[in-house]
Amino acid sequence: MEYDFLISDRMRNVDPKPLDDMFSFGVDPTVISLACGNPDASLFPAAALAQAAFDVIAQEPVSALQYGKTKGYPPFLDYLCARLKQKQGVCCAEDELLITSGSQQGLELFAKVLLNEGDTVLVEEPAFIGSLNAFRSAGARLIGVPLERDGMSLAALDRLLTAHPETKFVYTIPTSNNPTGITMSVEKRRRFYEIVKKHRVFVAEDDPYSELRFDGKILPPIKCLDTEGLVLYFGSFSKILSPGLRVGYVCADPAMIRLLSVAKQTADLQTAVLQQMMILQYVRCNDLDAHINALRERYAAKCGVMLAAIDLYFPAGASRTEPDGGLFLWCDLNNGCDTNRLVSKAVQKRVAYVPGYAFTADLTNKQSTLRLNFSALPAEQITEGVRRLGSLLKTAEKDCTPGG
Amino acid sequence: MEYDFLISDRMRNVDPKPLDDMFSFGVDPTVISLACGNPDASLFPAAALAQAAFDVIAQEPVSALQYGKTKGYPPFLDYLCARLKQKQGVCCAEDELLITSGSQQGLELFAKVLLNEGDTVLVEEPAFIGSLNAFRSAGARLIGVPLERDGMSLAALDRLLTAHPETKFVYTIPTSNNPTGITMSVEKRRRFYEIVKKHRVFVAEDDPYSELRFDGKILPPIKCLDTEGLVLYFGSFSKILSPGLRVGYVCADPAMIRLLSVAKQTADLQTAVLQQMMILQYVRCNDLDAHINALRERYAAKCGVMLAAIDLYFPAGASRTEPDGGLFLWCDLNNGCDTNRLVSKAVQKRVAYVPGYAFTADLTNKQSTLRLNFSALPAEQITEGVRRLGSLLKTAEKDCTPGG
Repeated sequence: MEYDFLISDRMRNVDPKPLDDMFSFGVDPTVISLACGNPDASLFPAAALAQAAFDVIAQEPVSALQYGKTKGYPPFLDYLCARLKQKQGVCCAEDELLITSGSQQGLELFAKVLLNEGDTVLVEEPAFIGSLNAFRSAGARLIGVPLERDGMSLAALDRLLTAHPETKFVYTIPTSNNPTGITMSVEKRRRFYEIVKKHRVFVAEDDPYSELRFDGKILPPIKCLDTEGLVLYFGSFSKILSPGLRVGYVCADPAMIRLLSVAKQTADLQTAVLQQMMILQYVRCNDLDAHINALRERYAAKCGVMLAAIDLYFPAGASRTEPDGGLFLWCDLNNGCDTNRLVSKAVQKRVAYVPGYAFTADLTNKQSTLRLNFSALPAEQITEGVRRLGSLLKTAEKDCTPGG
Repeated sequence: MEYDFLISDRMRNVDPKPLDDMFSFGVDPTVISLACGNPDASLFPAAALAQAAFDVIAQEPVSALQYGKTKGYPPFLDYLCARLKQKQGVCCAEDELLITSGSQQGLELFAKVLLNEGDTVLVEEPAFIGSLNAFRSAGARLIGVPLERDGMSLAALDRLLTAHPETKFVYTIPTSNNPTGITMSVEKRRRFYEIVKKHRVFVAEDDPYSELRFDGKILPPIKCLDTEGLVLYFGSFSKILSPGLRVGYVCADPAMIRLLSVAKQTADLQTAVLQQMMILQYVRCNDLDAHINALRERYAAKCGVMLAAIDLYFPAGASRTEPDGGLFLWCDLNNGCDTNRLVSKAVQKRVAYVPGYAFTADLTNKQSTLRLNFSALPAEQITEGVRRLGSLLKTAEKDCTPGG
């Protein structure tokens, strides 16, 4: 039976193909997938987390196994408040936090709470496809704001907010943006906030990577500048500990958290308490900061390997970002090649990437860009994957029309 | 800052008060809460689940801690297929299943996929408030179909489907309905399916309690009758093992599962794999059926205690259901008392229940009904809670106008 004709208008906005591709490429072990967004699994502190899981269920079975509170496990909320203040400088009270199943869910709930169908959302472009799809699934009309070397173009932001006073919120990943690895400068964060304050729009600040900056220096989130309750700060333990835990959070004004909590209760009642307790138990018995330092060093090294391989193997005209953290970098072939059309050829050559169009507001535009992940695979596979891809790109280049 | 004026139209449909009350009453230890829907925590197999958690993380850390598949952990899907066939007689392949974070999430995703704002949904009345709110949050216009002693009124169903040909789906909890404990007869299930087939509408069959029928006999789900891909079957491990695990599932036509999987990916990428692995490991090393038998015996006994207490302490004119399973029973004071207005007085008397209006399509109607939970508390607290409530209801009765 085919049901497509029955699908709701807002779900029709969602294009599942790019994410489906991303996951399916990872399944074939003969394909080197630079498409995924996985952390390095060899660094998971598995023994410590296994022990933490055992301990919390054995010691507090009712908390771990009974229904819990929609907002989150109270001792975990306390811990998170302290950690956010210490690490990011984000000051929040317990009533300013909601635990979500990954930050993905927080972004989806925010869109659901705020958006009517056709409402305008400005998104950093390029930006994470999962977030864009969450907004689309709430009926958003997305408009891209170009990313510059030091973060979102503020001239474009101001102009677009003036042209679209109906805008409900602006979405940004200010630190080590997914897919580019670009970070918004401190000065630009300050001016960004002045502009959104002037226009009275909300900000969804997505910050999964701030602790993974290679130099270890955390830049102050835009949330720290927020005097008006306009900024929602979305965080996650997926990249600093384990994505399988599915523990994210949103920090926002208490009135906004109340609205988000109603949406959360309606969506799935609560995020599992077990993983919240596991994280708490893990940090009691282990040094999370030391673990994150090890991640940063590993990812910095892998990023270096990938950059060197790109410089060696990619066509001469291609450009790339130089990430300061995170899991991804971004290439532009600068030759009019449609990277979406090349994906299937790349998979035939046993290498995969995500074509750039997937990260844009308007999915119908042709793009000569692509995203590569450097966190998941061992260094030698990164080099070999880039080599295969470079070889394909050089061959394909002959068929492409510059600017075409 | 107050944001209420900014909230989306569909979230405006949701009334969080009844569920907020339900959870908050459970917090004060001096209040005997018959309002919640908690399983008996003393029966959680905590030691076995602690060991299962340790084993699966230690043995398969990457599966447990890395990103997983949106549809669910493949070995768990295999197990679930076999179990559904063996227990409920529901035949499904792996591509007919999606793992969700509780069945609550499955119902919300289904509504999100199918409903445009203002679309009509017929709901068994009374029915679980969490489900009704999930439908409301997708913009549903709910119309109640009265429940009779042997399940939904089929005359009313046929009449309402004729009057509302725009109906997208019908919602039912055919076995041990929440809040009443009423079960739809086998004969009525057959006729119910003929009616929905005639009108070509979907069915959301919510079945968390079928294995908790006191006599241990599982009635065939409506899904087993489905030859047209119209029925979505929603199940959960919350009531037979632990609600904190947050593992539910939906079984439906493969094309529908594909649509629901896109919505699931957009909502939170995937349900945590850890709990799916824990359940698999638990059933490998333990006898889940024996555990469920113990639950059934305990709940049957507690239900008997509550029925006896109601007959002893409630006003003479009150009537009650006689559940054949599940966690709840339903009382009607039959005296025009508005049970919603009595809630705060009850809490003053240190006892809590859920007023009947919360389970109806139109929340503005006054109801003289209430839901009581018999699974969570020890027998002596059930008796004492019913005694306190009966005393209040007898006093309050004097102030109520019959039929008023």
